[in-house]
Amino acid sequence: MRIDVLSLFPDMFAPMRQSIIGKAIDKQALDFNVTDFRDFTDNKHNNVDDYPFGGGAGMLLMPQPIFDAMADVEKKAGDKGHVILLDPAGRQFNHAVAQELAQYDHLTFIAGHYEGYDDRIRELVDDEISLGDYVLTGGELGAMVIIDATVRFLPEILGNASSANDDSFQNGLLEFPQYTRPADFRGRQVPEVLTSGNHAKIAEWRLKESLRRTYLRRPDLLKNRQLTSQERDLLDDIRTEEMTEG
Amino acid sequence: MRIDVLSLFPDMFAPMRQSIIGKAIDKQALDFNVTDFRDFTDNKHNNVDDYPFGGGAGMLLMPQPIFDAMADVEKKAGDKGHVILLDPAGRQFNHAVAQELAQYDHLTFIAGHYEGYDDRIRELVDDEISLGDYVLTGGELGAMVIIDATVRFLPEILGNASSANDDSFQNGLLEFPQYTRPADFRGRQVPEVLTSGNHAKIAEWRLKESLRRTYLRRPDLLKNRQLTSQERDLLDDIRTEEMTEG
Repeated sequence: MRIDVLSLFPDMFAPMRQSIIGKAIDKQALDFNVTDFRDFTDNKHNNVDDYPFGGGAGMLLMPQPIFDAMADVEKKAGDKGHVILLDPAGRQFNHAVAQELAQYDHLTFIAGHYEGYDDRIRELVDDEISLGDYVLTGGELGAMVIIDATVRFLPEILGNASSANDDSFQNGLLEFPQYTRPADFRGRQVPEVLTSGNHAKIAEWRLKESLRRTYLRRPDLLKNRQLTSQERDLLDDIRTEEMTEG
Repeated sequence: MRIDVLSLFPDMFAPMRQSIIGKAIDKQALDFNVTDFRDFTDNKHNNVDDYPFGGGAGMLLMPQPIFDAMADVEKKAGDKGHVILLDPAGRQFNHAVAQELAQYDHLTFIAGHYEGYDDRIRELVDDEISLGDYVLTGGELGAMVIIDATVRFLPEILGNASSANDDSFQNGLLEFPQYTRPADFRGRQVPEVLTSGNHAKIAEWRLKESLRRTYLRRPDLLKNRQLTSQERDLLDDIRTEEMTEG
């Protein structure tokens, strides 16, 4: 996969190379490029932003540097890729969108700082994505989040695939509680079943606690789920237990 | 405000100092500290993770280094702050949560890498927050997103406050399209009203386009909104226009 990012702060992406991005580059699964679109300004002061028509606070990114930086990506890569703009009006990013993006050969992110964009740059954009109902000071962090969540699904990175498959959301449930050594940490014990060595009982306990956490915290995830008969029985137990507790 | 982050990758936070975090530190509105909890391990190999009880892929963060790093934060700051764990099972982060977090004097983030945490660390935690229904390879990016969205609301950073108030979500609508120079960019014109100088017409156009974008892309935001009579009239126009277009 090739990933391009157009950004005024290329240094912000440096630490990502320590992370999963770095692993993906090392495995030659990822060709990662950040372009500073300030290098493409055609005005003598290298300005990238200007005041909004019609008045208002703040500055807007001008179309010219972004259009020309995009043309450069297209020249170098052979195509401009699937172009993503981080925008609060975009579709909501989630697990399924990450898996979908992992199928592309080439993703290009436009990451702006400042107030906003000249709306004409939307002509370059294939996909508008929102991280959620909140505002960030720049698109860089949003691009990093999407890249991180997406690169995990590249086949070369998934590896034996067990870790991404155990994740929350992969099977539509929240993850069960996990414990590591010591079994007694300053008086706090791990649940006994986990040290029993009984694998069937451990699997059932984990499924049940996964269902319980989902039932208590994200009941919406259960609504769209086809439950097995074992899951239905466990949920009945959970409902009874939680009513008794309350 | 004081912000602490417990992380195994303190360098990942360095670029944030270029961003709004840096501005907030310069204005002495923010005291920002990252603690590497590997420095607090009490085993000779400085291990921070171990295998899960009951089997399974991946490693889990052990409780000891995190408990002891948190005790160190408490000693230095006088309190451990409002402790936030990034977790897909947590409450959904949004604009209102960012404004709420901006009211605290002290926030502390636990940012883990690897598979997950020993569940006993939840005893330290006051608030579990999810960025959305997707999985990141580490909590660092999630902490950065929350810090960025929250620090914007510090009174010293908001400044004249106009920019955060014009944002999407602040008034419950998506933002209207914005344009800057040139008025004609390679044949693409800005809407005429914006260069008219008629401020009342510009304000009406912006409200209408804000409503239109919200109506077309996020109708859910309109449902919970008390509409003014002007907004109701504009929405009637928009519905008619969009039907005619379709």
